[in-house]
Order: sequence, then structure tokens, then C-alpha cells
Amino acid sequence: MRLSQFHLHTTKETPADAEIISHKLMLKAGMIRKLAAGLYTWTPLGLRVLRKVERAVREEMDAAGAIELLMPTIQPQELWEETGRWEKFGGQLLKIKDRKEAGYCYGPTAEEVITDFARSELSSYKQLPVNFYNIQTKFRDEIRPRFGVMRAREFLMKDAYSFHISEDDLAREYRNMYDTYSRIFTRLGLKFRAVFADTGAIGGNASHEFHVLADSGEDAIAFSTGSDYAANVELAEAVAPGPRPVAAEAMRKVDTPTQKTCEDVAALLGIALERTAKSVAIMGEDGEGNDAGESGQFVLALVRGDHVVNEIKLAKLAGLGEYRLATEAEIVEHLGAQPGFLGPVNALRPIRVVADRSVAAMADFVVGANENGFHLAGVNWGRDLPEPEVADIRNVVEGDPSPDGHGTLGIARGIEVGHVFQLGRRYAEAMKCTVLDETGKAAVPLMGCYGIGVSRIVAAAIEQNHDDNGVCWPEAMAPWQAAVCVINPKKDAAVAEAAEALYRELNAAGIETVLDDRGLRPGAMFADMELIGIPHRIVVSERGVVAGTFEYRHRRANEAENLDRAGLGVKLGLAR
Amino acid sequence: MRLSQFHLHTTKETPADAEIISHKLMLKAGMIRKLAAGLYTWTPLGLRVLRKVERAVREEMDAAGAIELLMPTIQPQELWEETGRWEKFGGQLLKIKDRKEAGYCYGPTAEEVITDFARSELSSYKQLPVNFYNIQTKFRDEIRPRFGVMRAREFLMKDAYSFHISEDDLAREYRNMYDTYSRIFTRLGLKFRAVFADTGAIGGNASHEFHVLADSGEDAIAFSTGSDYAANVELAEAVAPGPRPVAAEAMRKVDTPTQKTCEDVAALLGIALERTAKSVAIMGEDGEGNDAGESGQFVLALVRGDHVVNEIKLAKLAGLGEYRLATEAEIVEHLGAQPGFLGPVNALRPIRVVADRSVAAMADFVVGANENGFHLAGVNWGRDLPEPEVADIRNVVEGDPSPDGHGTLGIARGIEVGHVFQLGRRYAEAMKCTVLDETGKAAVPLMGCYGIGVSRIVAAAIEQNHDDNGVCWPEAMAPWQAAVCVINPKKDAAVAEAAEALYRELNAAGIETVLDDRGLRPGAMFADMELIGIPHRIVVSERGVVAGTFEYRHRRANEAENLDRAGLGVKLGLAR
Repeated sequence: MRLSQFHLHTTKETPADAEIISHKLMLKAGMIRKLAAGLYTWTPLGLRVLRKVERAVREEMDAAGAIELLMPTIQPQELWEETGRWEKFGGQLLKIKDRKEAGYCYGPTAEEVITDFARSELSSYKQLPVNFYNIQTKFRDEIRPRFGVMRAREFLMKDAYSFHISEDDLAREYRNMYDTYSRIFTRLGLKFRAVFADTGAIGGNASHEFHVLADSGEDAIAFSTGSDYAANVELAEAVAPGPRPVAAEAMRKVDTPTQKTCEDVAALLGIALERTAKSVAIMGEDGEGNDAGESGQFVLALVRGDHVVNEIKLAKLAGLGEYRLATEAEIVEHLGAQPGFLGPVNALRPIRVVADRSVAAMADFVVGANENGFHLAGVNWGRDLPEPEVADIRNVVEGDPSPDGHGTLGIARGIEVGHVFQLGRRYAEAMKCTVLDETGKAAVPLMGCYGIGVSRIVAAAIEQNHDDNGVCWPEAMAPWQAAVCVINPKKDAAVAEAAEALYRELNAAGIETVLDDRGLRPGAMFADMELIGIPHRIVVSERGVVAGTFEYRHRRANEAENLDRAGLGVKLGLAR
Repeated sequence: MRLSQFHLHTTKETPADAEIISHKLMLKAGMIRKLAAGLYTWTPLGLRVLRKVERAVREEMDAAGAIELLMPTIQPQELWEETGRWEKFGGQLLKIKDRKEAGYCYGPTAEEVITDFARSELSSYKQLPVNFYNIQTKFRDEIRPRFGVMRAREFLMKDAYSFHISEDDLAREYRNMYDTYSRIFTRLGLKFRAVFADTGAIGGNASHEFHVLADSGEDAIAFSTGSDYAANVELAEAVAPGPRPVAAEAMRKVDTPTQKTCEDVAALLGIALERTAKSVAIMGEDGEGNDAGESGQFVLALVRGDHVVNEIKLAKLAGLGEYRLATEAEIVEHLGAQPGFLGPVNALRPIRVVADRSVAAMADFVVGANENGFHLAGVNWGRDLPEPEVADIRNVVEGDPSPDGHGTLGIARGIEVGHVFQLGRRYAEAMKCTVLDETGKAAVPLMGCYGIGVSRIVAAAIEQNHDDNGVCWPEAMAPWQAAVCVINPKKDAAVAEAAEALYRELNAAGIETVLDDRGLRPGAMFADMELIGIPHRIVVSERGVVAGTFEYRHRRANEAENLDRAGLGVKLGLAR
């Protein structure tokens, strides 16, 4: 492509309403243009990148045995009523009436449509397993669309749906898709993690999210430095530490008149924060399993002073499904002291004590004394108070051992770009989709579903790959791999010819190359190429033509270098 | 592709609600499946064909210098209000309210969006000419969606929009697109015609429709047998015939008691229908240019007995812009006779007579006598009545001379699959889109727009290419070029191996080949391959393997033949 015949439209101004770097850079580079809230036109430049992602996704899905079809963007209300999602999906569902007042929505996902397709197309177990996918425009009517294509209303998504006769076969295909997604993101040159995930609203059993790692990511991910283990921080298991040390100190009351936090107490006593335990007072269900209204069970949850209670984990414990924080009155009633001085020893009434694994492994630790202005030091389980109920009730932190036994955990931020689910029979059952099994009986198939946010990947890749001058595309996503920049093409025919020859040669060798023949000043031309993130920049100038060299610079390199043709070939990975 | 790993789902039943052959065959072959009225899922088989059309369109558009971008499917109401089309477009526009009650529509076309894009992206004549295109889903809320994807509500369309600083440059790009469209349809292997067209609702100047020829087409097209001239029958010019013969007969009144039509009169008199003239009584505008209310001008329009009046042409004559048919009372008042016996001679009052060119060239002809039960024969212009006003007011018929002077006209039926327009400044003006011209002044650019119904082409191609057994795809549109059918693959390993080897070899040679390894009976397998229209069918059987031959049959051939490997290569166009 010659830039003189392409529509490239970069701008210097930083757009006022763009909050994140990918949005800013996509606008500055002229990759997208806003049509309305959450609606973007992909310019010729942006579309080149989008199509590369789409192609990588399609080729890997095909290679994995999935079969592409194309479902309409507009879906009838009746199908969504069959699964109960017409009401349940919420305001993100863009509802539409046609000229006959029939109800439709703009599909935000296609479980209903594919299950309707399956119930008419699939009749026998012999047609299974099958995995249908489509790459189609979706719409979610976000309350606050923002961040450009990162959270647009209309977006391009790859969604796949598989059908199986057995749990084992669903698990096999789930693994197949997991591996396929890993291949897709690896091929695109992205740093990513597959993360254990909560299944959320879609429902089902196993579920992984695929996150592109970027400091600006919305989600915190715990990952192992020694394996491919990764999980949302809130779901990652905090494993039990080594055995509890032997008690060495006697329990004693210490004066802490104004020290209400573990940090303050540790500082006052001159001990490590890890030696203190934090007491969180909550109200669980009552004996009959009713939630904690007026009459729930008082529970003290203990985590180490340097840890944070994980509400999701806590709520999974028996009797705590609907827990709430205790009121000050309830605290005083049960413990006889104000918040800041609470602990598991010497409660006024019998209470349930749940200790995090790390707290259960402590000896000679510090807790509140249940007496305003005092803490207890040298506390030991079994001796000073009964052994507690032990559970994993905290968030993991950097440096924790990985739950899979390999390496330790790091914490990173990620942007969700893919999600694989085992849906089970939920949709097939609701929509009466059955096939005949080997015995000739009608069986409800199991389903998996597998999504990739194709357009979102473009933004996520920029969040991960940029510098002060613009985007630094991975090769596989770059609009062009190489740019041949001509200095003064109109002034010097030999320079223009040399550039044209190189441009043709590189394209013929399979390196997608753009010729910047717009005749801009070198500074403006280089700034554009850096902004739009072309990996390899080659400058053809009069001096270079005379010397038989090209000025080469990789987008991530600090300096340009002058290379002869052979040296340039090496940089571009061309076999000579 | 191995069919055992593909989702092919053909049916024997002819679908009850399918009215046209392409709809029937697409359902029977399992190319599409109805989701709701006018909404179809493209199955894996159908999508293969759709993507081939899409790819041909994209590659030819790229080669023609057009630049691809991607506009959202959802468009804001404000833009449509700027051009006045929010109200004017009519019920086909699917209007939508989002969760904030803001107005949108599902784009049926994108003049507004592209002009909005242009007014922010284009600022100088130096950026022109430019031709932006996108291949995107569109929606038109048809009152009566039918004929499958031929008249679906949601469909895939390629729409292109070009911007120009001068009329000449617009005309150049219009020709470029005209040629590109011709290349696209030629490449797809379709018989088509580019047809002069009325510009209809979109407005502008020049306009051509591209029609795929098929007996079932909705539009009648007049085309030259001696050139590439083609026009909608209603717009094709009926050229003047040779000079009027010399009068040979005297005018005489003939008894036609019950003969009210030209056909009946000609039969009674034993003359050719071409010797009679039909009189159509209409009311034109009055002297002040008001339309034909109570007081319009009475006009008699004359066409030959074998011709049909063309209302569009008639309405283009001075004073007939808003004409209507005359009432019987008006006829009796002006001519003194009832319909069936009308003519231009002996009117009761002065009337305007408009004769078609062919009537003006007649001598010794027959017309009504303006007396119930009588006609006049041997009538001659100038002698028996004044020379008439002469105009082209009839539909052309087969055998008419072509208006371009080359050959004669044939009449064919066509399906519109493409349309090119010169829009002029209408949209740019309404939306205040300007660029600076060479003198530094703001100039409103001229626009062209160019559409192709990508999904419709699939149906149109079937209308043109089918037989009793199914689709007969042109090579370029076939889901696969060749099918290797294996007889008893599970019983005979040598046969399965030979088929597998051929399947791999053909694909490696660039012939997209499907292996039918489903193990069906030969009859069922062959019926499927004929139904889905694979051009080359190759059967691998035990007998063939022993003899070293393959049974080959082209989809359009009547018989199969046994060929050795070399002979097969020739049939498949492989260089050996």
C-alpha cells in the first residue's frame, strides 16, 4: 500500500474525552472515529488491525475443528423468553420493535439462537460433538459506554457453542478451546493469562477467563511465577502455611490506649505486622438457616494483620451464605468492647471463631483484649483459647505460595478478552433441545460456550504495547510490518526509485510493507509511523542511496542504524 | 474438508413456504435456516458460498483503489434528520430507542454516516478523490419479507461512497466502479447486464443497475443483441421506425358492432394487429399548469395495437406530469362515443392527440370511429386528420431496434444485485460537508455511491444456475470445486486410502475439495452432491481402484465417465 493512496489521518491533539491510553492512541492514530456514544467507525487503518485479529481467531478456530456459521444480529424475543433471559438480562439488552410491533433484540450473545438452531439441526448423537462459531457484531447497551472500543456498545465478537453427549466429551472440547485460545493470543504476540473464573451470570460449571496483562487492566489476577496457574485474586486459594511454631511467650495484656489498628499496635509494640491478627465481627445465619436478620449468629473472622478478608470465600462457609457486618451494639453485646480492641479471647458470650489458615498457624500472636484500650500479646491457640474453625478466608498476596505447588504468586492486572464456559444443560433443557442417544432415547446435550472480544483485543493490545510516542504493535497485529519512508521523493528520482524497489521487494517477500510516499517532512513522517506503531521503519534518503545503505529502526529500539541490504534482510527476518 | 467433520444437513422435503427456486434449494441444501421473518442463519455450507462472494467483491474493490473501512450497524437519528430521511425513508427504516431513549436506526444504507465521517476526516481537495467502502450487515424492515435471502430483512451488503471535487472526476470513478462491478460478476461466473436505471429515491444523476439474468427475475430488461446496451423495459427508448408509407387506401367506416379491442377488430377485418392503433383517453394539466382535477386538458394517446402505453414516458411530456385516465363521462363529452370505439378523427371537441413514433409512421391504419359500433379503416395522417404530436410513449418489445443503433432488442428478466449512482452534492450539501478547493475556498464535494447485495447474489446465482436435482454453482461460488465420494470407506481400506490420497492431492493443487467420507449409500451421497451443486464429482470405488480409474462427472454433464489420473487432471484443469 502506498500511503498517498490510503486514507491515513493522524492528529496531534490528545482527545479530551479519552480516559485510557488505548482510546487516546486509537483516536490520535486515526484508527477509529466516534459516531455516537459507544459506536465507532473503524477507519481503513483500524480495520487492517481488526481484520488481523479476526483472521487469527478464524484460522485457529478452524484448525481446532470448530465450524463457522453466521447468525443474524437481530434475534426474536420469543427465544429469549424461553430461557427467561428476556427479563433477566437487564438493561444491556437492546430491545427493538419492528413495524409489526413484534419484539426483537440486538444480540449481545447467541445461546438462544444457537440452541434453536441445534434443536432443529441436530437429531442424533452421531452428529455430536460439534462446535459452531461465528464472528459477528454484537450490541450491549452499556449504561456508560467509554474507553473507546474497550467498552463499546457495538463490538465484534467471536462466539462459539459446542454440543456434547457426555460430560467427558464437553471437558475434552473445553480443553481444546482452552488450548486454542492460548494459541490465538500467543500468535497475536500478547502477554496473557488464562484465569480461573467465577461463572457469573451465564451459569454452568468450569470457566476460565483469558486476560491480556496490562497495568491499566480492570481485574487483578494472581498468577504463579513457576507454572501457568492464574486466578482472579478473589478466587485464588491462599494455601496453608507451614506448621504452627511452639508457644514461647506467656499471654499478657498490653496497654494500647489509642491503637485501634494492627499497624498501630505493631508499631507500638515494635513487632512485625505479621504477628498480629485482625478480628472482623459479622452476623451469620441463625440456627434455622435464616439469614442474619435481627437474630443471626455472631461470628469473629480472623485474618493476619497484613491480610485482607475475602468476602466471597467467607460467604462460602456454612452458615455465612448471607452474612453481614455486625453492628456496634451487637459487638458490645457479645464482646464487651468497642471495635479496635476486639479479639477471640474472653468474649462475654459464646461466639463462633473462624481463623484464616495463616492465623491458625500463628503462635505468640497479638489480638484485641475485648477491653477498650487493651490488646493481648503472646496469645496461643489451645492454651489461651480453644482451637478455632480454620478456613481460607483471605485474599492472596504477592509472594504467597502458588496453590498448585509450583512457585509463588505474583499479582498482575488484566483485561478480559476471552472466556470459556462449561454451560452444561441449562440452555438445551430450557429450550427442549434433545438428540437421540446410543440407546435411542432423547437426551439433552451438554453445551460449552467460548467467546473472544475481537475488537476489544485491539484496544487491550495497545494497553500492553505502547510508549510515549504511540503504539508498539506486535508483528502479528501491526497494520503493516514495515514502513519504507522516502525523504524528498519528488526532488530526487533515484531516492524515489530505490524506495519503490525496496517496497516492492519486501511485499514480494511476504513482509506487508507500506510506502510513505506522501512527501512529508522526515519528522512528521517518523512521528506518524511511531504513532501508528509499525514495527520496522526503513528510511530511504539521498545519503543512503549514495552510500548503499538504509536507515533502519525497530519500533522498540532506541536508536536507528545504517545497514546495507543484507543487514536489513537479517533485521526483517528474511532468509537470504 | 472431510464431510464427516462438517455439518451438512440436507433435506428431501420441499419446504412449504418457499415460493422461488433459490429459496427452496437453499433450504433443501441446508445453506440457510430461518430464525424469524426475514432473518436467516447462514449454515456452515451457506457461509462458504457467501464468503466467496464477499471475497470476490473485496478483492476487486481493493484492486480498483477503493479503501475498506467498517461503519457501525446502528446509526444515530440526528444524522438522518440532517438529510430529512428520518421521516422520508419510510417503514423500512428499523427505528430503535436505547436505554436512555435516544433515537437510532439499524442502517439500511450509510450515506449519512459516511458523509458525517467525511466532514470530519476530509478537509482538503488534496485528500480527494477517495472511495470508502464497507461490507456490513444492513437491515430493511420489509412489509413482507420473502424469497429467503433474496428479500431478507437482515442482509449483507457492500456499500461504497466516493468523494470528488469535480463532475469529471465523479464520472471517472463512476466508470471505474461500473467496470469493477462488471469484473466482479464476470469473476463470479454470472450472466448479467448493466442496466440504465431510474435514480429512484436515492436521488442524483446517472445510475445503472446490475442485474443477474434469470427467468424468475422481478425486473424486465431490454438488452441489445448487438452491443452492451441494456435498460429497464420502462426506460428503454423505442426508436422511430422507417419513414411513413404512402397512403394507398381511402378512409372508410367499418361495422364493428361488438369489437372493442384492436385484437378483435384486426381479426374481424382480417388484418395484422400492427395495422391498428389503440386510443387511450387521459386528462392532462389545465392551461395554468394545474394538475388534471375537474378541468384538465383532454388528451388522446395513440400506440400501435400490438404495443403498450408506457406511463413513465407519457408523464414526461409537457402538460402530462400529473395525468390521469379520463372518466367515461369525459370521454363521451369529448369524443361522443364509448370506450372501445375511440379515435383521433371526428372528435366532438378540439382535443390534443399524442401519437407514438410507430403510430406516426403508419399509413392506412385502423382506429375507432368515435361512434359506438364502428371503426375507421384506411386512415392517413395529414389527409384524414392533422399531423399529430409525436413522442416515444410505449414500452419497447422484443425485436425493436436497439436505441444505440447496434442490433435489436431482446427482453430478459433480471434480479438486481448491484447499483451505481452519481449522487452529486445532495448529501454533502445537506450535511454541510465541505473541503477547501485549490483556491482555498470551501467547496461541497460531489459524491457517488455504489452498492452490491452480497447475500442476494447467492440467491440470484441459484436462480440462474440450477436444474431439477439442485444447484449448479459456477466454479467461483461453489462451496467446494470438487467432491471426492468414497464408496464403502469402512469396508475397503484400499478404497478409503485412494480417496484420501486424491483428496489431499487436489487440495494441495489448489482445488478446494471435499471428501465425502460419511459412508452413505452411493445414491444418497450423489444426490447430496448434486443438490449442493459441486461442479466436479469424483467417485472412488473398489472397481475403480482395481482398474486404476476414477468415475468423473461434471455437475452439468449428463453422464459420468471413467478416467485415469491424467484424464481426471485434464477435467479439473490441472497442469500435469
